[in-house]
Amino acid sequence: MADNAPPAEAGPSKNALKKAQKEAEKAAKKAAAKEREMAERLKSQGGESAADVSANDYGDLPMVGSTPYTPSGDKRISFTELKAQEEAVVFRCTVINARSQSAKLAFLNLRQGDQTIQAVVAASEKLSRQMVKFAGSVSAQSIVLVHGLVRDVKEPIKSATIKNLEVHIQRLFIISKAEPQLPLQVEDAERPLPEEGAAAEEEKEGERPRVALATRLDNRVLDLRAGHNKAIFTIKSGICQLYQEFLISKNFTMIQTPKLLGAASEGGSNVFECTYFDRKAYLAQSPQLYKQMLIAGGFEKVFEIGPVFRAENSNTARHLTEFTGLDMEMAFEEDYHEVVDLIVEMLLFIFKGLRERYGKETDIIREWASSGKHIIEDFKLPADGKVPIIPFKEGVQMLREAGEELGDYEDLSTPQEKLLGKLVLDKFGSDFYVLDQFPLAVRPFYTMPSPHDPQLSNSYDMFMRGQEIMSGAQRVHDAGLLSQRCKAMDPPVNPDGAGLKDYVDGFRYGCPPHAGGGFGLERIVAFWAGVGNVRLASLFPRDPSRVLP
Amino acid sequence: MADNAPPAEAGPSKNALKKAQKEAEKAAKKAAAKEREMAERLKSQGGESAADVSANDYGDLPMVGSTPYTPSGDKRISFTELKAQEEAVVFRCTVINARSQSAKLAFLNLRQGDQTIQAVVAASEKLSRQMVKFAGSVSAQSIVLVHGLVRDVKEPIKSATIKNLEVHIQRLFIISKAEPQLPLQVEDAERPLPEEGAAAEEEKEGERPRVALATRLDNRVLDLRAGHNKAIFTIKSGICQLYQEFLISKNFTMIQTPKLLGAASEGGSNVFECTYFDRKAYLAQSPQLYKQMLIAGGFEKVFEIGPVFRAENSNTARHLTEFTGLDMEMAFEEDYHEVVDLIVEMLLFIFKGLRERYGKETDIIREWASSGKHIIEDFKLPADGKVPIIPFKEGVQMLREAGEELGDYEDLSTPQEKLLGKLVLDKFGSDFYVLDQFPLAVRPFYTMPSPHDPQLSNSYDMFMRGQEIMSGAQRVHDAGLLSQRCKAMDPPVNPDGAGLKDYVDGFRYGCPPHAGGGFGLERIVAFWAGVGNVRLASLFPRDPSRVLP
Repeated sequence: MADNAPPAEAGPSKNALKKAQKEAEKAAKKAAAKEREMAERLKSQGGESAADVSANDYGDLPMVGSTPYTPSGDKRISFTELKAQEEAVVFRCTVINARSQSAKLAFLNLRQGDQTIQAVVAASEKLSRQMVKFAGSVSAQSIVLVHGLVRDVKEPIKSATIKNLEVHIQRLFIISKAEPQLPLQVEDAERPLPEEGAAAEEEKEGERPRVALATRLDNRVLDLRAGHNKAIFTIKSGICQLYQEFLISKNFTMIQTPKLLGAASEGGSNVFECTYFDRKAYLAQSPQLYKQMLIAGGFEKVFEIGPVFRAENSNTARHLTEFTGLDMEMAFEEDYHEVVDLIVEMLLFIFKGLRERYGKETDIIREWASSGKHIIEDFKLPADGKVPIIPFKEGVQMLREAGEELGDYEDLSTPQEKLLGKLVLDKFGSDFYVLDQFPLAVRPFYTMPSPHDPQLSNSYDMFMRGQEIMSGAQRVHDAGLLSQRCKAMDPPVNPDGAGLKDYVDGFRYGCPPHAGGGFGLERIVAFWAGVGNVRLASLFPRDPSRVLP
Repeated sequence: MADNAPPAEAGPSKNALKKAQKEAEKAAKKAAAKEREMAERLKSQGGESAADVSANDYGDLPMVGSTPYTPSGDKRISFTELKAQEEAVVFRCTVINARSQSAKLAFLNLRQGDQTIQAVVAASEKLSRQMVKFAGSVSAQSIVLVHGLVRDVKEPIKSATIKNLEVHIQRLFIISKAEPQLPLQVEDAERPLPEEGAAAEEEKEGERPRVALATRLDNRVLDLRAGHNKAIFTIKSGICQLYQEFLISKNFTMIQTPKLLGAASEGGSNVFECTYFDRKAYLAQSPQLYKQMLIAGGFEKVFEIGPVFRAENSNTARHLTEFTGLDMEMAFEEDYHEVVDLIVEMLLFIFKGLRERYGKETDIIREWASSGKHIIEDFKLPADGKVPIIPFKEGVQMLREAGEELGDYEDLSTPQEKLLGKLVLDKFGSDFYVLDQFPLAVRPFYTMPSPHDPQLSNSYDMFMRGQEIMSGAQRVHDAGLLSQRCKAMDPPVNPDGAGLKDYVDGFRYGCPPHAGGGFGLERIVAFWAGVGNVRLASLFPRDPSRVLP
């Protein structure tokens, strides 16, 4: 206890000795006071501490205000490191649930990330019944600090992802207590959404209620704790990394283009208006004009990951008013298919990466989303690696052969897109394909007309499971043709307007031919996993009726 | 010419032979017509093509509409691949300038990325004077296609970055013509900004005019073509990659939080208001509340790269109304310095990466920015790798010793920050340092108070060259304390308000202690390179008076 006293040197003076003794006493006193204080702070709630051998081993921790309480050396470990061993381990985790089996025995399910383990608190000479009672009553979702021994088990544990181990708890402290009544049970969130058509949260016999999407999104903090959500956002983060990995390897530059624009340059009515000091500004509907200005500015290859804002009053499963755009643009030499080929190669790289690095997460999401009649199939890619690039005209032909009626230069409806996806899957064995050479009339003013048919254009869409994930094109890089195309639009676009003039002028200073496209990241995530609604792939989705939380 | 005719088989019928001959004639005719058409299209502008041996070797290319015109096999190469060799090479590039030295000789300076090379067009039996004249008159900034021979030179070429080679042009076509009068000369943009205090664009004797920042930003497409701008945005992209590389290696998840908020949750007046269908929405002033909700949602470590909007009417060199935030947040075990240490390690990783991977770009920018009295010093890091983490109190003490008068719990002024930066540099030899334990009163409501002094807080700022690049803190993870802190603010914050309720509730469901911070990416770029104004590090900067282009 007198560790802090200075060592008694050979032949010290009386005074020095006295001083040293005094200091040692002081230090011992201080240490004892500290110990008492600690015991006080860690005392059980039941007020039974007097007769409680475990009094210092459980209870509420004081709020972590960065005055470390644990003796140094208590390295906290991760569930991925757990193995049966002699030494006790210390870790922080979330309590999934806690229950007292008897006055002498309590069980807890504990979670860290996507791993769960079973823990036991058993009364003994060294562990009081009060502590067992405390452990069995910890509220679900509380964050706790556990000291315990890791032991092998004989029978695999069904209720945990770690099946061969359990933790014998020695000390248990609450870091952050969850209220006993939660607006949403995480276990409920971990079951699939209600069947389409079924009343929301309808109870089936013997089944716990299904939680409707709106309830989940209203209580997103709790909903996000469900395992499938961790998997969804791990995959979303992973796609961003794979996307960048590929493009950086091809010498692309990552850019950030402005989201606040002085004019609604892209036209159309689906733009959000803001107050910008004493004037108006508008939220970017895409980085389109800016990424092209960068090509004109001498950047050969650029990409962006950023928010895209669309004031579309569409309440569908694939529209958000704010989503993450994966945009790219590059100069090419002779034919925009140089760019199409690169984008296809990139997507194959991403899909391959998802399979190799995120197979477990993919399975978790698909398992969560599969229910009853609705089974999520694996995402199919062509066996020979040749992704179908289908001219729009041929797509129309395929649809006609399947009984659809449509014109040569009409855009496809959503059901037609889905049907075409099925036809392509049947014919080419691929859930991913490109539709090329769209009718000029259905594309924006900056789209390069086709040299082969004035009613077509050098533009393309890409699809996953019959749903569009990106739209792209060769762009007009000539100011004269661009002005002409602006005027040919219905309604006409003014190439000299505030937002467009700088853009059009960029092509008067020399600009290489270029093409690009923009992906909706949430769509890639949702369609890869096979979950129907893009809201599931947005942390805090925005739609016409939801802008909170 | 009859390559397309079917091969004459042994013993064909008379009819078959006739048919084959007819087809061969047809094919020959077609090929000849195509050749004439090509010659027509490639014909020189001067109308002298009749007597011009080079008639097919120069001129305006038809617009690249993705009908390839070059014979396949003309692989286009990059300047980085150039070497003296027998075979002709083909490449696309930008003309920096072109001049006729005589009727027989023209010189061009050509650029690809950050590389430039000299090219010669010399009249000969095979190359007409008309072509020399054409080459000498190509307008600066036009995009051209060059066929030529690469040759060693005896004397190093001063005016080009590739000093040991030149291109002897054989064919020269214009892909995209720049107008002869440009609003800004790229060579002018490549000289430094006007000296501070000097009249904008003031002409000094014997010097070309300096281009003021406003003129550059008004003509950003041309300004961005300057070499230093490529370097600036290569570094900006590089920082994003280094930032992610480090955080991904530490198991962080990349997130995208909403930018459209249903309430101005962070408080304060500097928020942009939008029309959101039939209600109001607000642009996110930071991802603060959302990244914390994700920690409460069970994500242990998150980061974001995204736009941040501040409706501050500040016209300073370090404020933008829209900038790129590098935000991060992580749960920790016992002390928020776990997070501070990780962030410091990350910045050292970024600085090291900038030195190793972007040394050339750093030099280009610093050379551009250095002028006259204003020399950009290298960015200094402590020799022993120990980044100074200075308690705020000590910082105040250092400033007082240097003659400043300020209170213990007052925030620093910008000049005081800069002075402290100098003092720290003198004392510790580091342009990068951390100021720790800021006064509680000058930090936002979600900041964790210090356990050691109720007037201080577990918060920190990080600085480069005496200027703030990030602000961070341990956050309050307890709903009770958070409500208390909200009410203690002046003016008080309502913890039950529309934007805050979901956030505060998140901490009722169990949440680990956590800390984080947010960097201004443009500041890191600007202060690393030593350019004074953050606008230079934004592609299309936004400030109170600029929201276009």
